Amino acid sequence: MAERPGEFALIDRYFRPLASDPGAFSLADDVAVYVPRDGEDVVLKADLIAEGVHFFADDPPAAIAAKALRVNLSDLAGKGAEPIGYLLSLALKPDWTEDWLRDFAAGLEADQKRFGLSLFGGDTNRSAGGLTVSVAAFGRVPAASIVRRSGAAPGDLVFVSGTVGDAALGLRIRLGTIDAMPAGKAADHLLDRYLLPQPRVELAATLRRYATSALDISDGLVGDFAHICDVSGVGGEIEASTLPLSAGARMLADSDPTALATILTGGDDYEILATVPEPDAEAFAEDAAEAGVPVTRIGRVVEGKSPPVVLDGEGRPLPLDHMSHVHF
Amino acid sequence: MAERPGEFALIDRYFRPLASDPGAFSLADDVAVYVPRDGEDVVLKADLIAEGVHFFADDPPAAIAAKALRVNLSDLAGKGAEPIGYLLSLALKPDWTEDWLRDFAAGLEADQKRFGLSLFGGDTNRSAGGLTVSVAAFGRVPAASIVRRSGAAPGDLVFVSGTVGDAALGLRIRLGTIDAMPAGKAADHLLDRYLLPQPRVELAATLRRYATSALDISDGLVGDFAHICDVSGVGGEIEASTLPLSAGARMLADSDPTALATILTGGDDYEILATVPEPDAEAFAEDAAEAGVPVTRIGRVVEGKSPPVVLDGEGRPLPLDHMSHVHF
Repeated sequence: MAERPGEFALIDRYFRPLASDPGAFSLADDVAVYVPRDGEDVVLKADLIAEGVHFFADDPPAAIAAKALRVNLSDLAGKGAEPIGYLLSLALKPDWTEDWLRDFAAGLEADQKRFGLSLFGGDTNRSAGGLTVSVAAFGRVPAASIVRRSGAAPGDLVFVSGTVGDAALGLRIRLGTIDAMPAGKAADHLLDRYLLPQPRVELAATLRRYATSALDISDGLVGDFAHICDVSGVGGEIEASTLPLSAGARMLADSDPTALATILTGGDDYEILATVPEPDAEAFAEDAAEAGVPVTRIGRVVEGKSPPVVLDGEGRPLPLDHMSHVHF
Repeated sequence: MAERPGEFALIDRYFRPLASDPGAFSLADDVAVYVPRDGEDVVLKADLIAEGVHFFADDPPAAIAAKALRVNLSDLAGKGAEPIGYLLSLALKPDWTEDWLRDFAAGLEADQKRFGLSLFGGDTNRSAGGLTVSVAAFGRVPAASIVRRSGAAPGDLVFVSGTVGDAALGLRIRLGTIDAMPAGKAADHLLDRYLLPQPRVELAATLRRYATSALDISDGLVGDFAHICDVSGVGGEIEASTLPLSAGARMLADSDPTALATILTGGDDYEILATVPEPDAEAFAEDAAEAGVPVTRIGRVVEGKSPPVVLDGEGRPLPLDHMSHVHF
């Protein structure tokens, strides 16, 4: 093991090049500085991903790096915030290799370019067990413009970005707990959606403009809508027939009776759920499309304080055993 | 295991009460917001502590919580920053208990009161291996007043707060790698200094006022002074005879020939090393004493770009095998 670089050499070789913001001091100090612009709020988020819980040990290192960043960027996007940078704390397994770390850093670098980020600091440690990757990301919104969970009002329409359920179905394919998905493009799409979340960073400004509430779907569509209903003190309805599904998710929903529950309650979608006043709905959808993010109307906010219901094609509530995916 | 609370229940019971700042939204949203004051910079720091690396599995949970916070607060203090809050990402071992978590949260709460902090978010996860506790702390300084590693100039005097070497000696006592320390108050002091760092938060304003460079000693006195010399482009001298030692460290230094190297290069002191122009030295020491933190002059910054040297009582350089403690 003597040929592996020590902590300071690792930082020099792989992390210093990622500290592009002047406030990161090229990682040659103990802290970083962010100079806020006038009239902005700083938005903060931390999320850790652990081997065997959020990813597989043999996932490509660059994909693990991207996932660690993107689960945080997705939260910022769902709140209308523009990302700025992140701090990274790694706990590496005893058998880490320099090749692994080089690929991991390359994954960070690619996402930094894609999303306009800088590394602002962090640390590299040994872990007694599995790999954990801890990211604390920060971003900005114009003062007091953050999009909360709490603003949904009866009559608002419910929108979701992209397609739902893909990542949870991809995980089930990977675990072998769902039937009959022929190998090919549709299956690959589902697997890729689990491996590599696509945070909807482009939707942030549109959400600030139109959404009364929003969040990213990390705990499952129904569970996260329940969060909004709970905090906003409202009820809600989702029409199952309107859910935007990818080709692969559609195939599985047609062939496997358990697929719909996975689509509704499985985690890791990292799409955005938003509520929008009905008069703004058309403008919201157009603005989102211009930003490059398709959104679909899937339901409505209603009076009441009960958990949201999912309605089938005849308007009857579907029974759901679990509302939400829990990473724990 | 069914009687253990799930992630959301845990947050409700133990973490929500810690989210005292309004910007933390009682942890009932996906992110937190910090509204910067006019004319301040935000200071950012993340540090992870891992079982078997930075603490022992059977350390008191409240002490593990305190250490996770304090290693970050110490970095902020060394840069002249006032702490505001933190994000916490936990990866819990499979056999975690609710009692353990309650005591851990109580440790956080006690330190939040002591240091004036709020929890701003984070997440709780399973770990495949040992416990890791990841903290991202943030604080503030008046605009452009952060104390860097880079400002040391030839002729500056070198100061250190408190006493040095205690924690590293405490760890050696705990590991049984040092001889002859009778049980008692002096030994307990060393053990406690390893278990529970005391970040010098009170020294922040004094450092901003007088220090040309500063940092907290987490990698060892000589190694961290070498960081300052390296980044500042200067050399340095430490006079071993002037090092402020606790009674226990003094006993060990007198009886065990390996103790001095530990004092000079062992990690985890979490005292502050600062360089101060000679004309300001007296005012700096008085100001620090008024803030409740004793400081001792231990050396001088000199011309040159070589690593710092440690001089014995006759002015001869001491040989040091390792400059620095590395957590890796």
